[in-house]
Amino acid sequence: MRILMIGDVVGRPGRKAVREVLPALLQEHRPDLVIANGENAAGGNGITPDTAGELFASGIDILTMGNHVWDKREALTLLEEEERIIRPANYPPGTPGRGYNLFEVKEGLKVGVINLSGRVFLPPLECPFRLGRQLAEELRAETRVIIVDFHAEATSEKVALGWHLDGLVSAVVGTHTHIQTADARVLPGGTAYITDVGMTGPRDSVLGVKTEIIVHKFLTQLPARFEIAGGVIQLEGVILDIDPSTGRAAGIQRVQHYCNP
Amino acid sequence: MRILMIGDVVGRPGRKAVREVLPALLQEHRPDLVIANGENAAGGNGITPDTAGELFASGIDILTMGNHVWDKREALTLLEEEERIIRPANYPPGTPGRGYNLFEVKEGLKVGVINLSGRVFLPPLECPFRLGRQLAEELRAETRVIIVDFHAEATSEKVALGWHLDGLVSAVVGTHTHIQTADARVLPGGTAYITDVGMTGPRDSVLGVKTEIIVHKFLTQLPARFEIAGGVIQLEGVILDIDPSTGRAAGIQRVQHYCNP
Amino acid sequence: MRILMIGDVVGRPGRKAVREVLPALLQEHRPDLVIANGENAAGGNGITPDTAGELFASGIDILTMGNHVWDKREALTLLEEEERIIRPANYPPGTPGRGYNLFEVKEGLKVGVINLSGRVFLPPLECPFRLGRQLAEELRAETRVIIVDFHAEATSEKVALGWHLDGLVSAVVGTHTHIQTADARVLPGGTAYITDVGMTGPRDSVLGVKTEIIVHKFLTQLPARFEIAGGVIQLEGVILDIDPSTGRAAGIQRVQHYCNP
Amino acid sequence: MRILMIGDVVGRPGRKAVREVLPALLQEHRPDLVIANGENAAGGNGITPDTAGELFASGIDILTMGNHVWDKREALTLLEEEERIIRPANYPPGTPGRGYNLFEVKEGLKVGVINLSGRVFLPPLECPFRLGRQLAEELRAETRVIIVDFHAEATSEKVALGWHLDGLVSAVVGTHTHIQTADARVLPGGTAYITDVGMTGPRDSVLGVKTEIIVHKFLTQLPARFEIAGGVIQLEGVILDIDPSTGRAAGIQRVQHYCNP
Ligand SMILES: [Fe+2]
Ligand SMILES: [Fe+2]
Ligand SMILES: [Fe+2]
Ligand SMILES: [Fe+2]
Ligand SMILES: [Fe+2]
Ligand SMILES: [Fe+2]
Ligand SMILES: [Fe+2]
Ligand SMILES: [Fe+2]
Repeated sequence: MRILMIGDVVGRPGRKAVREVLPALLQEHRPDLVIANGENAAGGNGITPDTAGELFASGIDILTMGNHVWDKREALTLLEEEERIIRPANYPPGTPGRGYNLFEVKEGLKVGVINLSGRVFLPPLECPFRLGRQLAEELRAETRVIIVDFHAEATSEKVALGWHLDGLVSAVVGTHTHIQTADARVLPGGTAYITDVGMTGPRDSVLGVKTEIIVHKFLTQLPARFEIAGGVIQLEGVILDIDPSTGRAAGIQRVQHYCNP
Repeated sequence: MRILMIGDVVGRPGRKAVREVLPALLQEHRPDLVIANGENAAGGNGITPDTAGELFASGIDILTMGNHVWDKREALTLLEEEERIIRPANYPPGTPGRGYNLFEVKEGLKVGVINLSGRVFLPPLECPFRLGRQLAEELRAETRVIIVDFHAEATSEKVALGWHLDGLVSAVVGTHTHIQTADARVLPGGTAYITDVGMTGPRDSVLGVKTEIIVHKFLTQLPARFEIAGGVIQLEGVILDIDPSTGRAAGIQRVQHYCNP
Repeated sequence: MRILMIGDVVGRPGRKAVREVLPALLQEHRPDLVIANGENAAGGNGITPDTAGELFASGIDILTMGNHVWDKREALTLLEEEERIIRPANYPPGTPGRGYNLFEVKEGLKVGVINLSGRVFLPPLECPFRLGRQLAEELRAETRVIIVDFHAEATSEKVALGWHLDGLVSAVVGTHTHIQTADARVLPGGTAYITDVGMTGPRDSVLGVKTEIIVHKFLTQLPARFEIAGGVIQLEGVILDIDPSTGRAAGIQRVQHYCNP
Repeated sequence: MRILMIGDVVGRPGRKAVREVLPALLQEHRPDLVIANGENAAGGNGITPDTAGELFASGIDILTMGNHVWDKREALTLLEEEERIIRPANYPPGTPGRGYNLFEVKEGLKVGVINLSGRVFLPPLECPFRLGRQLAEELRAETRVIIVDFHAEATSEKVALGWHLDGLVSAVVGTHTHIQTADARVLPGGTAYITDVGMTGPRDSVLGVKTEIIVHKFLTQLPARFEIAGGVIQLEGVILDIDPSTGRAAGIQRVQHYCNP
């Protein structure tokens, strides 16, 4: 089976890229499931019912989140009600929403999706190594096809989690840095791995934000109101080929597409 | 003209990859200059006269450094004496060594190389944006061909510096994360850019270190003695094509090669 | 001569404490100059013309700032126009406002006030050690009475700056942690030192904010809207006795007063 | 009953201060139990069987630890064997040693001691708020007299934990910053609280280390070998008066003593 995982969708341009580029990707690659990281879907920070709805209408099946999950107040109820959105599972007990879920892709074929957050240079959530392994083992009672979105900053933490879950899940794909990495491969145990799948949003920007705003902020150390950049839009992600009976990945392939603003 | 920039060389395996893979690269691409980041050359941390000497003997022309520059005591005198090694220019005034230099590649063709360190999640050195621009402008009095190794953690800071220096230098290439990124391109002003050129060292590792050590550290939060991993070795870098008269980049191409341990 | 330095004034309760407690302090201690840290004066974050005006009307002569200096937009013009407010001097060149100033306390008696920000766990401004020493030396051409408000988090950085400037300035007083420390003393070179002068605001709170909000935030890692706490209000600070001819401190005495909300 | 809690004992001078000052303190205050933070007992970093033995021989009953707990390799076995040493309870499951313990002070009078580490600017251990409350509730089945050493950096986290455990434990005393704070008091629920009890070691130093080494490090950003400072030695701590039947604190009093090197 085939799964398309799309990197952090940033604001209106990101949603536009999904709407315009995804149909061609669906036709070309015919994935059974499309996952996207939606933590920046609403104006660059967080998610709302409207922006989530727009992404689902464009063909996204599941949205994962990250450190920006609660930036919009509506997320607190949205994530309680909407089973297709998952947030990092390692938030403390009692956190609204769910950190993983099982999705029936077709008759008799379920996919487990787990979202985890790193802790290096990020808030001190529960241990993603310990919890990631525990959740993977639990989900394996239901399916062998398990995808982990590891939303983390430090390459060391991301690579280490890939190795830690190798053989237990079908893929560990990184998000959060908004820059696609060139290290996609299948690890020896059969887990597809990439440090970061990249970003879906304005290409000529700093992680989606207008370049001059961020450069000015670095130069002056003054606070700044972020604005989403214009210009050419990119859609970045990976295509995962997985053997549904064993859960082993057969391949992972990077995807980079562009559209006009 | 053509320049090969090689990512962080890690320990004995990294030096071996340079020794074994570089000759073929030289023959295939015929670069006029070979730069490598050497901050991890000596046992994974820092540099020594011996390890630097070995890399120069293998065909490296210039070594840049990073946050590990002072991990070996010998570096304090080595960097004073050896003009071919440069450390981040934004260390405070009075720091041993030099942060940039001009290298004569052939009769009448000089290349300026600047090393800068990021400050996000890293020590508070001087502003790399302000200083980077100032040094670039100074070096432009001598040559238009200027290469910046920006040794930094956060993708936002790296991308922003790329834009900040676009049109002023020939290339801004990132190092430090040890993971090659898939965003190499020439920016509109003519500056080649990549967020990270990657690592030269053991592939099946966490940034060069034995996987089980790092996973154990994340799981237990106990201190650990790092050991360089074994197995297949990778050499990662980029090839930069630059018009020597204007300094504009014509292309940037990612390189990933492997050799046996 | 005698100087009263008051710790971070937090919101309406903090301003009330200044208004109600300061008159008695002025009468009892008869300071020649009253400085207060005003970075939290406006609703807990930043400063505005109104809140600054209220503090000046209550008897404050000079306001120093810290990492919250720019939280209110009005500060950008306020600090350009109002010479009695100074912000950390180690912001980059070109930052609005001034980082130090000379104030004429009485005929022939000037006091230099320098505001510096730490860099440990705080943004990467310019080096407070280097700049602090340079500014102190410059101001000494005008007066020997120099007060440094070092707004910093880490005790190591604060203590170290105290020693670094010992003998060069009359006092290094810390702010930012909102907790008064019990280490006030005159260092061997004649510089009065305290790691933190404390906070002026609601006592039964977490640094001025409602306790239940901050505890909930630590428990849930969810974002929260901060609200200033109610209840008994404290005013904390230090009284510095300085020989105006030599600039040497003769004493430093902690002050803690309370008033009803 | 009365408990003396002594702040971080730093190296040989710190151990000497305990040996020389403690006898007089025991005679004057007649505490039923003496606790000291020992994370810096061995040469400034970590603890060994010898340094722990020396402190026990000098009259310390219990040693708590902090982020330096594992700096000396011997600690891994020492903390398994020695019940009188406890390390932060919020290390992950499987960590050597124990995070709390019950100590019988006299016939029928037990004291529970819990050690916790903060997570702001410190490694991502388990949640000290959640775990602290859980452990306190468990220990209350055995005794009402419970002392928490909260080894943490940020004042916000320390104050918040004090409030969070108010009424549940007899005292929350902070350690780690090496600077005693002036905020000791009994909170409304009956819990004695202080943000930091201070340091036991060389007074004229930066947190115990030679001043010139730390100042040089801040100025140059170069690595440095730390050396314990000489000169006058301080012993800092607090005396807690607790009603053994209810566990409520009746008072908390700061202690600062000095001896010759
Ligand atoms: Fe994102
Ligand atoms: Fe993120
Ligand atoms: Fe490196
Ligand atoms: Fe590095
Ligand atoms: Fe403040
Ligand atoms: Fe502050
Ligand atoms: Fe300590
Ligand atoms: Fe500590």
